Amino acid sequence: MRFDIITLFPDIFAGFLSESLLSKAIEAGLVEVHLHDLRAWSKNKHHKIDDRPYGGGPGMLIQVEPVVECVESVRPLCSDPGQLILLSPTGQRLNQALAGELTATGRLILLCGRYEGFDQRILDILQPRELSLGDFILNGGEVAAMAVIETTIRLIPGVLGDERSHQEDSHSTQGWLEFPQYTRPREFRGLTVPEVLLNGNHREIAAWRADQSRRRSAPP
Amino acid sequence: MRFDIITLFPDIFAGFLSESLLSKAIEAGLVEVHLHDLRAWSKNKHHKIDDRPYGGGPGMLIQVEPVVECVESVRPLCSDPGQLILLSPTGQRLNQALAGELTATGRLILLCGRYEGFDQRILDILQPRELSLGDFILNGGEVAAMAVIETTIRLIPGVLGDERSHQEDSHSTQGWLEFPQYTRPREFRGLTVPEVLLNGNHREIAAWRADQSRRRSAPP
Repeated sequence: MRFDIITLFPDIFAGFLSESLLSKAIEAGLVEVHLHDLRAWSKNKHHKIDDRPYGGGPGMLIQVEPVVECVESVRPLCSDPGQLILLSPTGQRLNQALAGELTATGRLILLCGRYEGFDQRILDILQPRELSLGDFILNGGEVAAMAVIETTIRLIPGVLGDERSHQEDSHSTQGWLEFPQYTRPREFRGLTVPEVLLNGNHREIAAWRADQSRRRSAPP
Repeated sequence: MRFDIITLFPDIFAGFLSESLLSKAIEAGLVEVHLHDLRAWSKNKHHKIDDRPYGGGPGMLIQVEPVVECVESVRPLCSDPGQLILLSPTGQRLNQALAGELTATGRLILLCGRYEGFDQRILDILQPRELSLGDFILNGGEVAAMAVIETTIRLIPGVLGDERSHQEDSHSTQGWLEFPQYTRPREFRGLTVPEVLLNGNHREIAAWRADQSRRRSAPP
């Protein structure tokens, strides 16, 4: 799977790209991440790509020319045109089902906003799919792009060490929440591991876990 | 506002902390971010903090001892005990209203999960507030912690250059979406800026924008 990230702040991703699971997926050739600094498409000698809104109002808007030209340069870098995603608080909400759909596309071009938003003609011309993490305002699209990358790469076969893990994650099992889990030590400050998990009876353990999952997801 | 981030991968935050708005807020003394590597609280010579789940199952769990002891060391680093937040896909959904509440607390200790999750006794002993970005699975709590930081610091007076900006963001104006915005040039590939925005009549501009906002947020 290939990601092209278009951003004004490519340095934000430095630590993120070194993250263990992602960097292993990149090394294994399962994932490619390419950063594109939007300022490189500025025609302004100060590399400015924003300007004040017509009609007045606070803040600055990202201009149409550099964004459209950047996307038109980035898209042909790979034979798969991919899907253009604009990270925006007013977009469609990301969820596991949508993540599966995005993973299946094979290539995402992630356009990260900043400031007060984009010139409307960017949306009119490029017609990106607008995606949001939820009802909250971030400083820009970069953290949302990281969330899209993490959520989608987990679904690529081979990225998670243990194939079963993502199937047993919450949200992938019919909306049921997970059961309580315990690891060593058996006792900590008087709190002990439930006996059923220690007896080696796999049928009893499965029944206990199913019951715990049901209790957790029952309406309050 | 002070953030203490407890994580197994502090390096992930390197680029994020250099991000313009956040680094300016840190320089201005409005925000403090402290990273705490959970492995430092391991008692294992290999700095291991995870182990296999009792009763079987895929993956590894984060152990109770290092997490509880880490939180107990980090909490007294500042006189304000703050609020302990565990980033978890099964937690309460982040939104703007909750962000306002979190900003008001003054200090957040953000506990980032990894692997298959936490030993249940971590939740039993520390009773953190569990917070989620939405119905999707990330590789760990780190990207969710970044989203919490961005969303909350925007609400601290002085962090945004222009005080009006966050009030006019989508989601902060009674759920209405924003109006289309335009900046220079006036014409790009045949697409022009609406005349009303160019005539300098502020009453007409306000009416047009209110109408556009209403159209966008009308049910489809």
